[in-house]
Amino acid sequence: MVRYHFGYDDVREARRGKRLRPLLLLRVAQAEGTTVERALDAAVAVELLHNYSLVHDDIEDGDRVRHGRPTLWARFGIPQSINAGDAMCSLSYLTLLGGKDSQSGLGATMAHALHEAHLAMCEGQSLDISFESVDFVTMEQYRRMIAGKTAALFGAACRLGALCAGASEKRARSYDALGRSYGIAFQIRDDALGAWGATEVTGKPSGADLARRKWTFPVVWALSRSPSADRGIIARAYARGGGLNPDDVVSVLAALERLGTKAAADAACDRALAEAHAVAQESGLDSGGGIRQFLAEGARRVA
Amino acid sequence: MVRYHFGYDDVREARRGKRLRPLLLLRVAQAEGTTVERALDAAVAVELLHNYSLVHDDIEDGDRVRHGRPTLWARFGIPQSINAGDAMCSLSYLTLLGGKDSQSGLGATMAHALHEAHLAMCEGQSLDISFESVDFVTMEQYRRMIAGKTAALFGAACRLGALCAGASEKRARSYDALGRSYGIAFQIRDDALGAWGATEVTGKPSGADLARRKWTFPVVWALSRSPSADRGIIARAYARGGGLNPDDVVSVLAALERLGTKAAADAACDRALAEAHAVAQESGLDSGGGIRQFLAEGARRVA
Repeated sequence: MVRYHFGYDDVREARRGKRLRPLLLLRVAQAEGTTVERALDAAVAVELLHNYSLVHDDIEDGDRVRHGRPTLWARFGIPQSINAGDAMCSLSYLTLLGGKDSQSGLGATMAHALHEAHLAMCEGQSLDISFESVDFVTMEQYRRMIAGKTAALFGAACRLGALCAGASEKRARSYDALGRSYGIAFQIRDDALGAWGATEVTGKPSGADLARRKWTFPVVWALSRSPSADRGIIARAYARGGGLNPDDVVSVLAALERLGTKAAADAACDRALAEAHAVAQESGLDSGGGIRQFLAEGARRVA
Repeated sequence: MVRYHFGYDDVREARRGKRLRPLLLLRVAQAEGTTVERALDAAVAVELLHNYSLVHDDIEDGDRVRHGRPTLWARFGIPQSINAGDAMCSLSYLTLLGGKDSQSGLGATMAHALHEAHLAMCEGQSLDISFESVDFVTMEQYRRMIAGKTAALFGAACRLGALCAGASEKRARSYDALGRSYGIAFQIRDDALGAWGATEVTGKPSGADLARRKWTFPVVWALSRSPSADRGIIARAYARGGGLNPDDVVSVLAALERLGTKAAADAACDRALAEAHAVAQESGLDSGGGIRQFLAEGARRVA
């Protein structure tokens, strides 16, 4: 089942996702002066933990398709898929702690940092699930949700990359803050792409989040504006509960555009990236500039 | 939700299970010369990990009642309960690694040992789920299933207790073997109690495992016998797939009794306990005898 999830059952067509988190970890490790080889176990651990969360999220959200293939639960049923996700969780930490020199104080520190992110991810996901049955989500609630669900693991990836390279715990925590800001930028951009991105880029039909009445950045931002005809269109569609029908999706998308939501998403994304850069500057991180380049590449504008 | 699962929402009536695993861990820690206080974080971690597995098992098995109360998913729905289980998993390791002197090589060693048991539990549970859709389970398959699902965590509990006390890794592994043998004995006895135990003792109606067509020790053992009228009664009831009706449960129970299954369960349980004692003897464990007493108390005969 783990092989199926990672697409290794049809060799040539394996879709392995963007692997942003492990790539970021490796860039940080290199920026801090160590090799990819030295940081590889931690990078694999982070990607496994991310994928364990995807397997469980797909069950919790009822999502039947990912990367154009049936999700694990759609293929093997819910009981085996909960359990396969649990196994992936243990494999993540066994990879992190299984290396020669990981049975050390450093191994314990890294495992603790990753479990902190793990708990934060659960807190974020719990909020996300609870949003399904509420009438309104504030920008503050949305920010808390993505801080846990998305940003915590980006933070841990950066922190682990730094720890692998022998950085001090203080310096590793600064990298964690940098990673969390980047994670916020990534999630806001991902939400905007979910509304307007081409299917070839996102792997899902555009407007899919709206059809599922997801509380994404565009919707939360638009509903935080002062009353208007366009805000009313969105509010009425989201007030009904359950999913949106295709006509509603089209009219909500149009209302979001007229309200300037794309530009707002870009601005929020840029602000989060600026925060990441500020952290790097303040703490003297990333003197080579490789991380900054990574952030810029990973967060192209939507508008 | 975690508070609800542990029964802390109705204070006086809190049902906290038998807590066998942490008690065993503490006994081993004491036998190896350390204090309860020193081993408490590890004991809590083991109990949390066990309860995370119960939360997920209840979803996977469709069980709506535990200790006379609705299970977590029956009360809060499947999505939130998968996620709450995941949070309990992270809390387990954060407890194990959160202590002052756990951010050390010892912490990493203990976390690795617990994650090894965690993975084995998933392997056992995967087998158990797969058994639902098969016509026949051999004693070897049953043994493999309980070795993962039950025995691995008893083993890890003993191993962690020894590690807490500063025992060598070799000695801790001997304790692991002792704990796994005890876990086998515990599971076989638990299966027999599930068939014949009084509801006041087991917390579930007697014959409940049969009604759900579970492949417990009594059924697997009886079907491993040579053909007979009584074996035929059991084979026919289990061949149908789906659960057993109340009449079938009564006739299967009677057939199991006539075949001498109670005595067979007691004998298999005693053999596993004898193995645990042999490990203790060989490796010079448990010189004070506290563990042996614990094993004897925890494995009273059924017949």
